[in-house]
Amino acid sequence: MSGRVFGEIPGYPEGSRFGTRVELSEAGLHRPRVAGISGSEKEGADSVVLSGGYEDDEDRGDEIVYTGHGGRDVQTGRQIADQNFRGGNRALALSSLNGFPVRVISKAGATSHSPAGDYRYDGLYLVDDYWQERGRSGFLIWRYRLIKLPNPSHAERTVSEERGAYSAAPRQTSTITRIVRDTEQARRIKALYDHECQMCGIRLVGLAGPYAEAAHIRPLGAPHDGPDVSGNILCLCPNHHVLFDHGGAAVGADLA
Amino acid sequence: MSGRVFGEIPGYPEGSRFGTRVELSEAGLHRPRVAGISGSEKEGADSVVLSGGYEDDEDRGDEIVYTGHGGRDVQTGRQIADQNFRGGNRALALSSLNGFPVRVISKAGATSHSPAGDYRYDGLYLVDDYWQERGRSGFLIWRYRLIKLPNPSHAERTVSEERGAYSAAPRQTSTITRIVRDTEQARRIKALYDHECQMCGIRLVGLAGPYAEAAHIRPLGAPHDGPDVSGNILCLCPNHHVLFDHGGAAVGADLA
Repeated sequence: MSGRVFGEIPGYPEGSRFGTRVELSEAGLHRPRVAGISGSEKEGADSVVLSGGYEDDEDRGDEIVYTGHGGRDVQTGRQIADQNFRGGNRALALSSLNGFPVRVISKAGATSHSPAGDYRYDGLYLVDDYWQERGRSGFLIWRYRLIKLPNPSHAERTVSEERGAYSAAPRQTSTITRIVRDTEQARRIKALYDHECQMCGIRLVGLAGPYAEAAHIRPLGAPHDGPDVSGNILCLCPNHHVLFDHGGAAVGADLA
Repeated sequence: MSGRVFGEIPGYPEGSRFGTRVELSEAGLHRPRVAGISGSEKEGADSVVLSGGYEDDEDRGDEIVYTGHGGRDVQTGRQIADQNFRGGNRALALSSLNGFPVRVISKAGATSHSPAGDYRYDGLYLVDDYWQERGRSGFLIWRYRLIKLPNPSHAERTVSEERGAYSAAPRQTSTITRIVRDTEQARRIKALYDHECQMCGIRLVGLAGPYAEAAHIRPLGAPHDGPDVSGNILCLCPNHHVLFDHGGAAVGADLA
């Protein structure tokens, strides 16, 4: 699909309501009329509809655990096969890797946080994390943790006020690609390893001191509930942290 | 100083008022009674007082450009020498490198955003960036861009509600270490270089695609007002981005 738009659609602020999937599509908020994920493997995903169709979806307002597509029986809606890493599933992972904002639309009755009627635009989310797991049905599914981003309608007003007075480059075009979080326990592990990457042995040193990142082997937070203890934490350089989080490899240079 | 506390001080929420520096110190919000920066080179900085004492300070509410200490005449308060990268100046850079939250206290009459009376605790800030520049006086000064973090008093309530139901590891202890931002122009540069680091040639590839980061040579936003154009952007691997931002070098492995 050409002209894929990431982020806000002008004229449709957070909270906008739509009666049908056709209206949603025509507004440009979520183009596909049936699929839950709007996106391509090359461009990433720009929106999802949280329809409650998947037994494993979880919605806690600002944090959603969204289930990828595929493997469901058309008649019964039950999971009858493993999900693969293609189409929308891979598109959502690409949005995670690049920090693209994803529009989330919820459907009435889908979950405890969804609105009373029809479809509602719930704002922009970051695909904070994704992983494969065995669902309630016993089949492998892809899951995505979506974290609410600040409402850009508010941010833009602030930014445009600032622009006149201070900024040469417009700042509302900037998006967040990556957020590195830390815990007290993580800081202890980094000190223990003297900020040396456990995968390649590199030690980055800035003017003010050494730098490393902590990677939780089993992630913190629902649904993994990984413990914040030393045995669950690796001390990594930023490059190996990215590779660790995104199942990757390094090409073209000697990254041990 | 032993027992340095980063983040919120229990019992003193954002907006708390104090009559004097002694009260501020006894509350533990900002320990030193004269210095504007509380911190050490080994531990990092935990708080600053925005007193309006430096001619180059800028305050726009959620974003503050703070001037480091040193080089001022005790009698006149005028900048009469270059500032060095020691003490509190280096401590603030260490907090930036590690993402430690810094308490900001503002003094009445200091700036347009400061309160009407005495000292007010304005909440936690992230040291987003720091650099050396020539101040209005003609001397070299250290400057720090501080960005407001969400009020943890609000976040904690949400988190503790979630914990009972979902989380094994308490999440309010987590802090943000690093935020990587992106722009449309940055995405074009990364595509142009096919996500290869311009410093070492490495190309990180995750399951969903390649990953690189864009570094603005002259930063966007006040006071640099660097342009968001290709000539101002480098395509870097995360390791070289950290080194580029923090004036660093890599030790112990072959990072080209």
